[in-house]
Amino acid sequence: MDVAIVAFDDFTDIDVFLPWDLLNRVNQSEWEVHIYGTKDFHRSVTGLTIPVHRKIEQLTYADAVLFASGPGTRALYKDEAYLRRIKLEPSTQLIGSMCSGALILGALGLLDGKTATTYPSAKKALQKFGVQVVEHPIVVEDRIATAAGCLAAQDLVGWMIQTLLNDKVKDAVLRSIQPVGQGLKF
Amino acid sequence: MDVAIVAFDDFTDIDVFLPWDLLNRVNQSEWEVHIYGTKDFHRSVTGLTIPVHRKIEQLTYADAVLFASGPGTRALYKDEAYLRRIKLEPSTQLIGSMCSGALILGALGLLDGKTATTYPSAKKALQKFGVQVVEHPIVVEDRIATAAGCLAAQDLVGWMIQTLLNDKVKDAVLRSIQPVGQGLKF
Repeated sequence: MDVAIVAFDDFTDIDVFLPWDLLNRVNQSEWEVHIYGTKDFHRSVTGLTIPVHRKIEQLTYADAVLFASGPGTRALYKDEAYLRRIKLEPSTQLIGSMCSGALILGALGLLDGKTATTYPSAKKALQKFGVQVVEHPIVVEDRIATAAGCLAAQDLVGWMIQTLLNDKVKDAVLRSIQPVGQGLKF
Repeated sequence: MDVAIVAFDDFTDIDVFLPWDLLNRVNQSEWEVHIYGTKDFHRSVTGLTIPVHRKIEQLTYADAVLFASGPGTRALYKDEAYLRRIKLEPSTQLIGSMCSGALILGALGLLDGKTATTYPSAKKALQKFGVQVVEHPIVVEDRIATAAGCLAAQDLVGWMIQTLLNDKVKDAVLRSIQPVGQGLKF
C-alpha cells in the first residue's frame, strides 16, 4: 500500500506530522508513506521545513491520499494550475482531508452533493461548493472522508488503516500514542 | 519567555512536533519557541529532517526546557560528553520530558528521589536512577514534570503555559486542536 500525505507551504504543523507519525507506525511490509508537494521542501506555518518525497502529479498512483491543512490551502483551492496537476479516482483510491484541506477536495469536485466537515474558519468557503458542512470530527462518504480539529487525525488515519488493512492494526497504532495510564499500559 | 524543545537524531516525530505546534499557538509578544540540538539538522525516527535553531549549551538561558523522546535517547542518556554540555537550573527553569526523555533528566540527576512517568519501554532504565516510576500521563514535582504517551504532550505543554503565563492561554491553546464537535465548535 502506498499512502500519500499532501503538504504545501504554510501547512499547519500537526496536520501533517500527526498523520505522518501515525501512518508510519504501521509495521507491515509493502506499506509506504510519502509526503507529496510541489517543491523539494515545504515550510510550515511556524517555519519548519520538511522534505517532499514526491510531486503531486504522482498522487494518481497512491492507494490513499490525505490532504493536510493550514493557511496555505486558502490560495491553493483557487489555483487552477495547482488543481489541474492533481488526478484522483475516488472509485479506487481512499481520499481524505484534515480541516481546511476539505477546500481542495471541494475545488476538485470530490464533495459535490456530499456532507463533510472542516475547520470552523473554513466552513463558509466549503459551503460555497454546495457541500453540507456538519460539526463532526469525521464524516465518511463511501471512499472519501473529511476530518476536522487536529486531533481528529486519529479518526481519519484510523479509517484509512482499517479500510486498507484491518481493525487490529488500526487499534494498535492508535493505542501507541495514548497517554500512559489512559490507553497505554506499563 | 524563551521555551526550548530538545531534539536529537532518531526522535519520535510526534514527541517533537506536537509540543512544537502547541507551544507555537501561544500568541503573545516575548514568547519564543526554539528547537535545540547538537547539529544543524536532526533526523526523526521516520526519516524527516528538521532544522535546529540553537545548540544545547544555550539551554541554560531558556525559561522552560522540554526534552523530546525517541530511540535516540537510549544512547544519549549514557553519553557523558553530551550530558556535560547541558546545564540546567531547576530552581529557576521549568524542566519537562516526554516519554523516554525522562532518561536524560534521570542521567542529569534531576529526578533523584522523585516520582516520575515514562514510556513503558523505558520504565526499567528509569528505575535504575532510583526514580519511583508511576503509570500516570504526567507527574509534576515542583518545577520538573515528566509526561508519557505521546498525547500527554497536551498535559506537559499545558503545565508549562499555565505556569509561565496563565490558565486562559493554556485553555485556548489546548482547545484549538480538539476535534470539531468535541471541544472545538463551529
